[in-house]
Amino acid sequence: MARGFLPSLLRLLRGKPHLPPSLADNPLLLALVRRRSVRSFRIREIPDDIWSAILEAGRLAPSTVNLQSWSFVLFTSATWQERFERPIPFHAPRGLILLGDTHRNRQVLEAFPIAPLVEYTIAVMNASLAAMAMNIAAEALGVSSVMLSETGRSGLLDAGYLKMKLALPPSVYPLMTILFGYSAAPSPPMPPKLPLEAIAFPGIYRETERAVMEDWLAQMKAGYKASHLFRTSFEDQLAVYRSKIHQAEHDLEEMVFGEQAACRLQEPGE
Amino acid sequence: MARGFLPSLLRLLRGKPHLPPSLADNPLLLALVRRRSVRSFRIREIPDDIWSAILEAGRLAPSTVNLQSWSFVLFTSATWQERFERPIPFHAPRGLILLGDTHRNRQVLEAFPIAPLVEYTIAVMNASLAAMAMNIAAEALGVSSVMLSETGRSGLLDAGYLKMKLALPPSVYPLMTILFGYSAAPSPPMPPKLPLEAIAFPGIYRETERAVMEDWLAQMKAGYKASHLFRTSFEDQLAVYRSKIHQAEHDLEEMVFGEQAACRLQEPGE
Repeated sequence: MARGFLPSLLRLLRGKPHLPPSLADNPLLLALVRRRSVRSFRIREIPDDIWSAILEAGRLAPSTVNLQSWSFVLFTSATWQERFERPIPFHAPRGLILLGDTHRNRQVLEAFPIAPLVEYTIAVMNASLAAMAMNIAAEALGVSSVMLSETGRSGLLDAGYLKMKLALPPSVYPLMTILFGYSAAPSPPMPPKLPLEAIAFPGIYRETERAVMEDWLAQMKAGYKASHLFRTSFEDQLAVYRSKIHQAEHDLEEMVFGEQAACRLQEPGE
Repeated sequence: MARGFLPSLLRLLRGKPHLPPSLADNPLLLALVRRRSVRSFRIREIPDDIWSAILEAGRLAPSTVNLQSWSFVLFTSATWQERFERPIPFHAPRGLILLGDTHRNRQVLEAFPIAPLVEYTIAVMNASLAAMAMNIAAEALGVSSVMLSETGRSGLLDAGYLKMKLALPPSVYPLMTILFGYSAAPSPPMPPKLPLEAIAFPGIYRETERAVMEDWLAQMKAGYKASHLFRTSFEDQLAVYRSKIHQAEHDLEEMVFGEQAACRLQEPGE
């Protein structure tokens, strides 16, 4: 398979959801597979009833032993500007910072004694379930959204900064910002998704062929080049992540393991 | 507020989704808020087209930098029995074990150099987004599901066991089993959800009042007592988790940090 810019871009643009014809008119299913991350919002407020319904979907998400180990810090564009002294990304009218949170439960329950990584994993897992529920509730209501882990110091790559800005107690972890609003442009094309047989296998783990990954990478590069109008590349985007990653690792390890983190963080060569 | 069994059970049964009347007829939103975890399935197969559509919703879920850091190991009740030498829980006709997976990407990309906790967090987060997308796709198609982290050695509390059974390479983490099928009983009542003001706050973190958590705990205990017909209690269920948690912590730390885990795992008192 040719992996140059144009052939890869063409393959990317041909990527479509695969729904069996028998199910292709199910509106909920269509909302799920047509959902896109939107990075450009119109200047239009989200009505309060719609915003409440989005949050309600998060509140009612499933969680391990129903522990609901999540919190949402809510923002309008004005309160975001006030808290962070810079504009909310992409002119979104509403946003929230998603937190994994096992702090609240500790008031009445020690669910995970001395197992910081299990406890953290459960918090991250459950909070992410709530995030996806809110994302889909928004779609159901005609509201687009995007989950950010880096843009605008808004996710786990800026965990230490967010802990300070949001006054987070121990056992509360900033994971991502979700921005909500009405899309200002037609849906962007679907980013290159791996074929089902590369990610799902019957009964036992199966390695993905290298050629599949190379094809995916070529499509990612082509997609970035096309959609960002040559202003930035996939490699540059990854470089932004990498520039923050060691600080983020340090902050997260301290947040998850506390003093126990020290033995690894201070080892020679670090 | 009285926190005995009956008053708590009554409060639990009165807990309902709060949808604004203006939106209460949105079918997608209703599917989201009415979704329940189902633990009893009819003997009825899931047709192939429906099963494919559920997996497709997972394949197309959003992920950090579109890295799709997830894998799904797929089972029927027969292949589950074969792999694990015991019946699939709750007679489910289909199930999958959800994996966080950054192994595949490493063939072509070192996205997160020397930042194991960041890398792990991103894998857990993204895989959980895919899990929720599949859960909701199933609902849209009349299929119920349940996410398990413990029952039947099926989730992160048995990470070491599952790594062995599924032949998982490094950077692949077993997170949960999701079982799918047609519900054999009317929807169970909604487990006690925290009020929105306890989990969502404008602009900055806010501590939840202890009374709110005590009320929640009383409802949890009453709900377990009522729904499990006195066979097990919430405390007993937590005790099962606790009995596995130190092994799970050890296995997960080794999977995430490799040799670096040793300095913490072998410290005195462990």
